[in-house]
Amino acid sequence: MSTYVAPLKDMRFVLNELAGLAEVAKLPGCEEASADTVDAILEEAGRFASGVLDPLNQPGDQEGSVWKDGAVTTPKGFKDAYRQYVESGWGALPFEPEFGGQGLPKLVATAVEECFASANMSFSLCPLLTQGAIHALELAGSDALKAAYLEKMVAGHWTGTMNLTEPQAGSDLALVRAKAERSGDHYLISGQKIFITYGEHDLTENIVHLVLARTPDAPEGVKGISLFVVPKFLLNPDGSLGERNRANCASIEHKLGIHASPTAVMVYDKAVGYLVGEENKGLAYMFVMMNAARFSVGLEGVAISERAFQRALAYAKERVQGRDVAGGGSAVPIIQHPDVRRMLMLMKSQTEAMRALAYVVAAAMDVAARHPDKASRERNQAFVDLMIPVVKGWSTETGIEVASLGVQVHGGMGFIEETGAAQYLRDARITTIYEGTTGIQANDLIGRKIAREGGATVKGWLEHLQGFDAELAGSKNADVQAIRARLAEGAKAVAASVDWLLANFGKDVRAASAASVPFLRLMGIVAGGWQMARAARVAEQRLAGGENDRPFYEAKLATARFYADQLLVQAPALGATVTSGAAGMMALDEEQFLAA
Amino acid sequence: MSTYVAPLKDMRFVLNELAGLAEVAKLPGCEEASADTVDAILEEAGRFASGVLDPLNQPGDQEGSVWKDGAVTTPKGFKDAYRQYVESGWGALPFEPEFGGQGLPKLVATAVEECFASANMSFSLCPLLTQGAIHALELAGSDALKAAYLEKMVAGHWTGTMNLTEPQAGSDLALVRAKAERSGDHYLISGQKIFITYGEHDLTENIVHLVLARTPDAPEGVKGISLFVVPKFLLNPDGSLGERNRANCASIEHKLGIHASPTAVMVYDKAVGYLVGEENKGLAYMFVMMNAARFSVGLEGVAISERAFQRALAYAKERVQGRDVAGGGSAVPIIQHPDVRRMLMLMKSQTEAMRALAYVVAAAMDVAARHPDKASRERNQAFVDLMIPVVKGWSTETGIEVASLGVQVHGGMGFIEETGAAQYLRDARITTIYEGTTGIQANDLIGRKIAREGGATVKGWLEHLQGFDAELAGSKNADVQAIRARLAEGAKAVAASVDWLLANFGKDVRAASAASVPFLRLMGIVAGGWQMARAARVAEQRLAGGENDRPFYEAKLATARFYADQLLVQAPALGATVTSGAAGMMALDEEQFLAA
Repeated sequence: MSTYVAPLKDMRFVLNELAGLAEVAKLPGCEEASADTVDAILEEAGRFASGVLDPLNQPGDQEGSVWKDGAVTTPKGFKDAYRQYVESGWGALPFEPEFGGQGLPKLVATAVEECFASANMSFSLCPLLTQGAIHALELAGSDALKAAYLEKMVAGHWTGTMNLTEPQAGSDLALVRAKAERSGDHYLISGQKIFITYGEHDLTENIVHLVLARTPDAPEGVKGISLFVVPKFLLNPDGSLGERNRANCASIEHKLGIHASPTAVMVYDKAVGYLVGEENKGLAYMFVMMNAARFSVGLEGVAISERAFQRALAYAKERVQGRDVAGGGSAVPIIQHPDVRRMLMLMKSQTEAMRALAYVVAAAMDVAARHPDKASRERNQAFVDLMIPVVKGWSTETGIEVASLGVQVHGGMGFIEETGAAQYLRDARITTIYEGTTGIQANDLIGRKIAREGGATVKGWLEHLQGFDAELAGSKNADVQAIRARLAEGAKAVAASVDWLLANFGKDVRAASAASVPFLRLMGIVAGGWQMARAARVAEQRLAGGENDRPFYEAKLATARFYADQLLVQAPALGATVTSGAAGMMALDEEQFLAA
Repeated sequence: MSTYVAPLKDMRFVLNELAGLAEVAKLPGCEEASADTVDAILEEAGRFASGVLDPLNQPGDQEGSVWKDGAVTTPKGFKDAYRQYVESGWGALPFEPEFGGQGLPKLVATAVEECFASANMSFSLCPLLTQGAIHALELAGSDALKAAYLEKMVAGHWTGTMNLTEPQAGSDLALVRAKAERSGDHYLISGQKIFITYGEHDLTENIVHLVLARTPDAPEGVKGISLFVVPKFLLNPDGSLGERNRANCASIEHKLGIHASPTAVMVYDKAVGYLVGEENKGLAYMFVMMNAARFSVGLEGVAISERAFQRALAYAKERVQGRDVAGGGSAVPIIQHPDVRRMLMLMKSQTEAMRALAYVVAAAMDVAARHPDKASRERNQAFVDLMIPVVKGWSTETGIEVASLGVQVHGGMGFIEETGAAQYLRDARITTIYEGTTGIQANDLIGRKIAREGGATVKGWLEHLQGFDAELAGSKNADVQAIRARLAEGAKAVAASVDWLLANFGKDVRAASAASVPFLRLMGIVAGGWQMARAARVAEQRLAGGENDRPFYEAKLATARFYADQLLVQAPALGATVTSGAAGMMALDEEQFLAA
């Protein structure tokens, strides 16, 4: 058996050495995020994750959430765990004090969120969606709506949902059909929504649905979508719970993974709803929620990788099988076998690279939101905008690969559900799909984030990489130099790909679009390599400076080297696929895709 | 909904144009395998797969096999399907006429096997294991054992199993503990075996277990393992079923996939067993079975890729979502979106490459077994030995990726079990594990298949690739030239990797072993690219010759080009990982793999 242990040492390293926690703590409103306070928070989060959430993960998967007569019962223990979650104030962590939040930086909240998603992804989805709903209300809700809902939601007494998808409208929200008829001070919402995470459950007494729908005179397409608050229970004038709203859960899905997280089919039948912001601007508000949610889903990729790694590592140390390939003798723990070692290194190095990139992006969110200097805010926001599809797309695709490696390390036992390794693969498999598939992320990346601004931000990042290359040139360490060479090749591949995308996006958008996912993967590998190279440089300096924890820094250096040799090395081929692969991708017409 | 349709057109192309069916049909004993007869067989196999096996696949997954009081009930419909399978003579297809077999070439049996595994992998495992048991008896069984068991097994009236694994002995059979005590003309077998596919079921009245065990005076390790036949029911002198043997199914596993295929825990408690061949030579006999089984599992990778592709293709043509990226207008079927097209092309091109390589290897098996010229037999056997770990390791790793792409094409619906796409991913996930993990295949490849003979066979293959390159140089087609360039880079990467492996296997076997899976992947990508290049060359010539079916050949050419741009292009990086990646792979000691 393997119990989740929060990877505090690596988290601290990333927070302090790569993501600049000390700088973030100097931002207005972030003063409480001292290294000591953050340490205490992370230790507490780790304890909650290990002690409360992790033990519920496998039983929760096996039992699943159960629907009966419109009500959903979460697995045994979830209700109590959620109560503890609320009582400990975890839900309030990242929000502004105005509505009861603790006002901690996104950077710190990100590390806490990783712990919870590692320990129990199904559980963690409930707060994740609630956060999204809170953000939308903060952004666009009227004062009355904020006053009525935010405090309860920030505290976690009520949860939130995002109702976008309909059977005919998934990635394409232009096809949303749900209706909203004006009725006095509110609207009557009708329609069916599917794939609604925690759309119904027994964890709290109320659920606050945020629902996309069309008013009768709305324009067609995405410009005619409005956003509504539709509570499960209406509120009395004093804020207490009143009448049951006509917002019902018709069923929940039978899914590949995240069994404990109920995925609801919601039916709104003239349910009372309240407009958020202005009519027909729903999609813009949703996008704000979605960006935060996309980052969080990317973080799920990190989290599930970490958890799968921990379980595989524990098994590899314990399982005795096969003689040492060089030494013979009696059977040894499989961690001594080179190919098992290779798999563990793939898991470890990619998890660390993804964590570093995600935390660095989180820190940039804090700067973008709070820095006194406008230029600094804008520069950081542009970096965040560029990197969110990368964090989402790359970390989730990689998370699936890492979880699959975790199964492989277990051999035959990995295929047996009782072992637990397979659950991470099943759970991870949703992450490249929800909150926008990898294809959607990649199109966002090349279109809105690169082509629209002529590649300004990505070129700025490439310039930064050049400066960093010059810094690395000063190192005499052979590993650092090997990493530097691979990173330079990677940056070159990105630069050539960006040039190709900018040249082709306008004149052959199909080719650009066909190249978008290989490009996203390239961006992820190189951005992750950038962070691993930074980590290697820090490790080299700490080792030279006589730092105490030599094994940690030596491991960091070796892990970064491994990442360069096995992952960064793939960059030139991905670049070639982007810049010269378009011909084959679109060559067949539909009829040539014959099955037989 | 998607119904499986056997890809007869591509199968015929591969059989006739790439695998040399006409040459195989000239081998002694293969005379019946004329193009017409083979066509008729494949059409019939396709009908059985589509009409009988495919409809049982999803219900079989949902219902699963069920254990109760030592008996296993297969899902509804399996028993009747198996009866039809036997009555149609499918089980007898690849075996010698002496015991009732139809004596058809391995090449033809391979295409049939692909159909059945595509339509219902869980079902197809029962014949697969039976075939392995038949091979072992053919190879090493006494005349009495052959007479008693083979006819019934070839006909499919009785099924066979392979009992290798014990809880402490998985990949490492040296650790086998099951005992065999001599008792007159037989032995009494005791011990527990796990992961026994179709170890118990209700499809036939008898089950013939082949069991590895140790006699009391056997040497330790792999040199003290003997192979025994242990029937579920003992036979009376007249061959009819007699007493129930003490071979019992204690439980079956709860697995990630192949739910319909019962994976049994078998308990032998002084069960009557009969020695196969000589004492202490069990592992050698098992290896023969295993090689055939490894090829079959590689073929499962092809089969599940084909099936996942067909389902994804059907969905992509049907699902309307999102406007054309270039044209705007109303929503279009998602097959028109470039990234969906890219995913379908990845699925299609890799499936075709894997199929071609597997069939070419199957044809080489026929030549190796039947050619009158000894040198030809030996040359082909060496090629088969080299390629079996590649077919097994590469096709199964790729099969998982393809099945995962199939989920991705479905978007949110892919995560819903009712859709059916997720089952292929769950089923495929076992294929890189059983019959030897990818790591085991890769070590076999670099050790027994390359280092042991100084790389003679692989170098012979590389020479063949050079000759083929010279042939391709004669083409004026731009796609063929682009493919040729990538294939040449791939061959160069293989050559450099082989040199490195030969130089390092002796002096640093750990480094060689750590590089073995990247090397296996490289071999697979290049061998697949070789076949796709051959296919492209044939297509080019057929098109130039005014062949009728232009869309098929044009698609073949474009698919080969896509494969070169997206897959073959990865070869140099894999080569670099092999030749320069060893440093990082083994750099950490165990204690540095701290989780926190």
